[in-house]
Amino acid sequence: MEPIIIVHGGAGDIPLSRVQGKLNGVKASAAVGQKILAQGGTALDAVEAAVVLMEKDEYFNAGYGSVLNLKGQVEMEASIMCGNNLDVGAVTLIKDFLHPISIAHKVLTNSPHSLLGGEGAKMFALEMGFSTVPPESLISENAKSALAEFLKHGEFGRTEIGLRDEGGVGTVGAVAIDCNGHIAVATSTGGMSGKAVGRIGDTPQIGSGTYADDNIGGVSTTGHGESILKYCLAHSIIKLMQSGNVANTATKLAINGMTERLKNTAGAITLSKSGDVGINFSSKRMAWAYIRSNKIYFGIEKDEILEEDYVSI
Amino acid sequence: MEPIIIVHGGAGDIPLSRVQGKLNGVKASAAVGQKILAQGGTALDAVEAAVVLMEKDEYFNAGYGSVLNLKGQVEMEASIMCGNNLDVGAVTLIKDFLHPISIAHKVLTNSPHSLLGGEGAKMFALEMGFSTVPPESLISENAKSALAEFLKHGEFGRTEIGLRDEGGVGTVGAVAIDCNGHIAVATSTGGMSGKAVGRIGDTPQIGSGTYADDNIGGVSTTGHGESILKYCLAHSIIKLMQSGNVANTATKLAINGMTERLKNTAGAITLSKSGDVGINFSSKRMAWAYIRSNKIYFGIEKDEILEEDYVSI
Repeated sequence: MEPIIIVHGGAGDIPLSRVQGKLNGVKASAAVGQKILAQGGTALDAVEAAVVLMEKDEYFNAGYGSVLNLKGQVEMEASIMCGNNLDVGAVTLIKDFLHPISIAHKVLTNSPHSLLGGEGAKMFALEMGFSTVPPESLISENAKSALAEFLKHGEFGRTEIGLRDEGGVGTVGAVAIDCNGHIAVATSTGGMSGKAVGRIGDTPQIGSGTYADDNIGGVSTTGHGESILKYCLAHSIIKLMQSGNVANTATKLAINGMTERLKNTAGAITLSKSGDVGINFSSKRMAWAYIRSNKIYFGIEKDEILEEDYVSI
Repeated sequence: MEPIIIVHGGAGDIPLSRVQGKLNGVKASAAVGQKILAQGGTALDAVEAAVVLMEKDEYFNAGYGSVLNLKGQVEMEASIMCGNNLDVGAVTLIKDFLHPISIAHKVLTNSPHSLLGGEGAKMFALEMGFSTVPPESLISENAKSALAEFLKHGEFGRTEIGLRDEGGVGTVGAVAIDCNGHIAVATSTGGMSGKAVGRIGDTPQIGSGTYADDNIGGVSTTGHGESILKYCLAHSIIKLMQSGNVANTATKLAINGMTERLKNTAGAITLSKSGDVGINFSSKRMAWAYIRSNKIYFGIEKDEILEEDYVSI
């Protein structure tokens, strides 16, 4: 099978001023992942590299550019899963590292545990040789404005459909299948603007933000975190594929089901084990991109599929 | 429908010396929950009260009696879910409160978030009026011995089937249906002996340790946390019921599936929305109890169902 990677850059009410930056970011991210896969690299390495690129990019709410909690601090989380043996690595309440997804990957390979949080996650990262960065170096101007805006208007907790929720937009994720047919998924986020200190969302929760199973497929989700985790959105999509739905149908059914039940929006990217693609979001916009047969496909509006020739980087 | 509550006191290689204490504990816990239900109380209040009783009991690995991390500290976690609207409250990395499940219940009712961890969870608990206790007051002699034993023999991370894993035994949980047909589930744990600082397990992860949906049923799980979360054990059982399996079949199929795929053991208690009971464990023992029609049913060995007359407390 041809290896493939699909990435997303977050679902939500993305303002027009940020559309082009997000599209550029997801296209570059897909290209970085695809290059690793084309060279015979693993799905795990491809999704990590794709997410690392977006964690560096202020257009996304992950790593640098993460949104701020009520105290104006960055608290990030990330997860990565390997569909071969269901191995998981995840971290939460990370304050002073640029690449939570890389720490998560080390949890997967070097820890007997799957999820580490707060001080314990920091101790583990330092043992693994990661360097801290000053927490303020992770804060972008956009994140500061988003918090100021939240403090003026509030009410993220009840982010109903259609209400402004730009503050939480920009979780990033990637799903890949490598040349050996192994599936991996990575997701990373700064959470939502104005969240309480210590709030943990869907991203590090396996089955909510991330799921991968070589026997079925892989999913990365984004959107209203509390709704995604209550619905176990990623695992719901996996189970719909297991019972015979193609990736796109499974993704659409689960997102519609969650949005109807919980009145909040989300999006997801999905690959089935045979490589068929699922992309769906109930939010206004979601940036996504994937590469197949020398074409790059991408979009951010509903029902939009843009296409360009792709020359390997 | 007759209200019902079922409780468990943890799956694992429970030594004979602890069997009677655990059986007494789960029977008392079921009685406390059943009394609330019989008086017209909510499923949420019943499962919280049932778990609170076990959090106080040193025979269980939750609240007082929680096992210790590698540094000899208690770090607890708990979750509670309401099947009516899928509302969730959960906490993790709790060090100095006796009843994590009660804080989790307050997250469900009083926070826009679903899961709070570490310092942020402590701040929230203090705001809600909970009092801290000295962390050392939560440590039992049994927990100290379990850590000493772990430090001598190690290797929990690869707790294969049949290996000694008493250190992690005794997560507690409860599933109830109240007189209005609403389902609630609560789960609370100290995790596993000798765990890394900051390790978060399956218990606070929705779909892994806990799940409730009035349209389907409720599940609380226990066992090897990393395996349970990789398999999304609670949500897997829910999905098997949704596709037509009765509670006991769904519980057995998912536990066998997890154990075959990941080579570690677990147990779960399940109620379907119509009140049929599922009890299954791949570990050596799991303590459980439920009350129906003036009988209390309980057990701890494989295929054991003991029965006594039950006089309401």
